[in-house]
Amino acid sequence: MSNHPEAPVRPVEAYEPPYYVAVFTTVRTQDQSGYSETNARMEELVKDVPGYLGMDHAQTPGGLAITVGYFRDAEALTAWRSDIEHRAAQKRGRAEWYQSYTLHVAKVERSHGFTRA
Amino acid sequence: MSNHPEAPVRPVEAYEPPYYVAVFTTVRTQDQSGYSETNARMEELVKDVPGYLGMDHAQTPGGLAITVGYFRDAEALTAWRSDIEHRAAQKRGRAEWYQSYTLHVAKVERSHGFTRA
Repeated sequence: MSNHPEAPVRPVEAYEPPYYVAVFTTVRTQDQSGYSETNARMEELVKDVPGYLGMDHAQTPGGLAITVGYFRDAEALTAWRSDIEHRAAQKRGRAEWYQSYTLHVAKVERSHGFTRA
Repeated sequence: MSNHPEAPVRPVEAYEPPYYVAVFTTVRTQDQSGYSETNARMEELVKDVPGYLGMDHAQTPGGLAITVGYFRDAEALTAWRSDIEHRAAQKRGRAEWYQSYTLHVAKVERSHGFTRA
């Protein structure tokens, strides 16, 4: 979920529906030890999931963070949800890093994009 | 999409599916004159849409912003999409405020939340 300063920031594009979004909205605790390492590892790991399309992330300093993962189909989401390392990270997140979160898993019915000419 | 410093930040809760999410990911231009006033007006206006459930917003400084709107059904989304003031704001957004954006409209199939005890 890092931004890469060498490349311009761009939102993930609009894919051809149907595809899936996993919208993960979080408020973090004060204790963030180990978070960034685990987060970086998850960012790498999810790329190996067949059907993974991309991820958007934004965080208001001191406020809400939103991560949106894009997946081609329900099978891709199931694979990611079942990943052993991911499950361990989720467990640690509930124990240490997250004050609160919500996950919304949804099937995209329409989408479009805009880029300034 | 403002945070209210008097209240703790909390993500919008997990509603009972089905419901809809509108995921709007944006990168803004340098020219933001009039944006915050219009944005505040849209935040008020959307509350009048029958079936509107809530909104999450996060913005990485200098980077990506993500707004997620939650709606009970497709009719609520259609009402919001058709709103005259909203359409004018969208048009101005493309002309002035957005470098690029993507909109993903999706039907939520499952959701859950977590709050630290």
